[in-house]
Amino acid sequence: MPVGTVATVKAMSPDELKEINAQIILSNTYHCYLRPGHKFIEKAGGLHKFMNWDLPILTDSGGFQVMSLAGLRKITDDGVKFQSHIDGSYHFFTPEKVIEIENSLGADIIMSFDECPAYSSDRKYIEKSLALTLKWAKRGKLAHKNINQQALFGIVQGGVYENLRQRSAEELMELDFPGYSIGGLAVGEPKEEMYRITDFLNPILPKHKPRYLMGVGTPGNILQNIANGIDMLDCVMPTRNARKGSIFTWQGKMIIKAGRYKDDLRPIDENCTCYACRNFSRAYIRHLISLKEILGMRLATIHSLHFYLELTTRIREAILENRFDEFYHKYINILDSICE
Amino acid sequence: MPVGTVATVKAMSPDELKEINAQIILSNTYHCYLRPGHKFIEKAGGLHKFMNWDLPILTDSGGFQVMSLAGLRKITDDGVKFQSHIDGSYHFFTPEKVIEIENSLGADIIMSFDECPAYSSDRKYIEKSLALTLKWAKRGKLAHKNINQQALFGIVQGGVYENLRQRSAEELMELDFPGYSIGGLAVGEPKEEMYRITDFLNPILPKHKPRYLMGVGTPGNILQNIANGIDMLDCVMPTRNARKGSIFTWQGKMIIKAGRYKDDLRPIDENCTCYACRNFSRAYIRHLISLKEILGMRLATIHSLHFYLELTTRIREAILENRFDEFYHKYINILDSICE
Repeated sequence: MPVGTVATVKAMSPDELKEINAQIILSNTYHCYLRPGHKFIEKAGGLHKFMNWDLPILTDSGGFQVMSLAGLRKITDDGVKFQSHIDGSYHFFTPEKVIEIENSLGADIIMSFDECPAYSSDRKYIEKSLALTLKWAKRGKLAHKNINQQALFGIVQGGVYENLRQRSAEELMELDFPGYSIGGLAVGEPKEEMYRITDFLNPILPKHKPRYLMGVGTPGNILQNIANGIDMLDCVMPTRNARKGSIFTWQGKMIIKAGRYKDDLRPIDENCTCYACRNFSRAYIRHLISLKEILGMRLATIHSLHFYLELTTRIREAILENRFDEFYHKYINILDSICE
Repeated sequence: MPVGTVATVKAMSPDELKEINAQIILSNTYHCYLRPGHKFIEKAGGLHKFMNWDLPILTDSGGFQVMSLAGLRKITDDGVKFQSHIDGSYHFFTPEKVIEIENSLGADIIMSFDECPAYSSDRKYIEKSLALTLKWAKRGKLAHKNINQQALFGIVQGGVYENLRQRSAEELMELDFPGYSIGGLAVGEPKEEMYRITDFLNPILPKHKPRYLMGVGTPGNILQNIANGIDMLDCVMPTRNARKGSIFTWQGKMIIKAGRYKDDLRPIDENCTCYACRNFSRAYIRHLISLKEILGMRLATIHSLHFYLELTTRIREAILENRFDEFYHKYINILDSICE
């Protein structure tokens, strides 16, 4: 899922997202709540209408953003008091409040409010935090008003501790959510730890419901986690890195500002069918990105998102055609070597 | 003509320029010479191919940019020695060098190298400068290699002095250029002075050749100067102002960040057919521009360029249908009041 933090996938128009076959995008509850405000977005007809995107949207819980405001927040049983990163104003998120915001935003898939502990947290802290997230999941479920329009997912926490992950998953499954998210990974742990946890959760989570791994990741992370049973992922890497000139290709990461591309009249990827590769050279995109020209950021973003969506499309086809193992072994090392 | 300073009309793709019916764009010789370099653009197949724009391009002479480098340049009879605004490196532009650069860039319409004196220059300086520009026009014409592919225009100078403008125009006309540019206006003089000069030159310049007024201007400037016989104009106003949230409409300038648009779910202009107006609200574009989101700058740019091109299209239709006077009287006050 391409990420549209403040109700826009950075540098992209909705038409361009459709041209690269984006089927769903993510938007951030915390950011939309602060600006322009969920009440206004509701008045504007919801997030879909506000940003002119008529395909599915997923909103996160705000948990990750709020927890990132170290020093600006205070967690209690009832919720989290925090200061806006923009103007320092005080706000209080409870599980009910987060669901109210997400109901206003109107995304197709929404998240329970969770506490997302740092990787450095000790087991004791994570155990306590986990209990809180479970309690909040129950409260959020009760507060959810648009059950038929918006699918509310519970978020599995538990750090890198298998028995905590298991407890979290099983207690959430008792609440019978239509889908399950895995939070608290990609927060600084080695990728082997992440893979161990998704692999561990694979047989535990129900097979007939979607599993969403939050905030992940590199192309290699995507393939490995899909091998470990994950269905959905989101990450800012393709968009954020592209704007700075770091572009994903099947041959590896291309740092387009590098001198070697100065005279290079080939497209980013000669086999790619995206708008950037059909029409522009590496030298031109390098020229634009070096001068911070908007079109350069646009073209790099189009290509990198196209690469990500082509990767997941090819994985999906391999699964449907019963040759995922073959695909996995062919590409896992290549993809892993692309972007560490 | 939308302005594409460094081989890109800021924030726009070539496809978007075509969608708003741009027929020709301008690019800056000075900027393309410095980055990525005219020799490289020639190697890339010329400006059209480099930037993927297959409709006409006009390149300016670099005169205006070089003259703006006050303190960083030294004018001699032979040309101008100047320091790059980027890295301070030394460069020397002669009339021959500028034509060589423009031949490499390969635009359809190119300009002679001119000295473009400041509005504050006295008559004596302007008279001397004018003689230099005429000499350079002759030298440039001799140096021009692609006469059949690139139309070289002479540039009329002479400040706000009618007899100097007359002398400049007549001496250039003896050289029989395929078109004539008017430079040295929109450099700080009151608009009445600008209009007086274009009106004065109207009966002097040949009727069957295009007249291009360089670097102008507001919507009112455009209508008045077309009334004064001008055929072509260029200006960064629609693109530059749009990125900062100042948007042109038939109802006046819209400062989209203003509080009154916070909850305004109407399009920028309800009668406009551009992509921005067909799909997005003022509130959404305000939200994006306030957060410096690229899509906001894109949508504002699309609308303002569409407005400029719609304005000139309507003027052209009025001329062809023999009702320009009526159009002029209906709109001159409205347009003038829009953007002073």
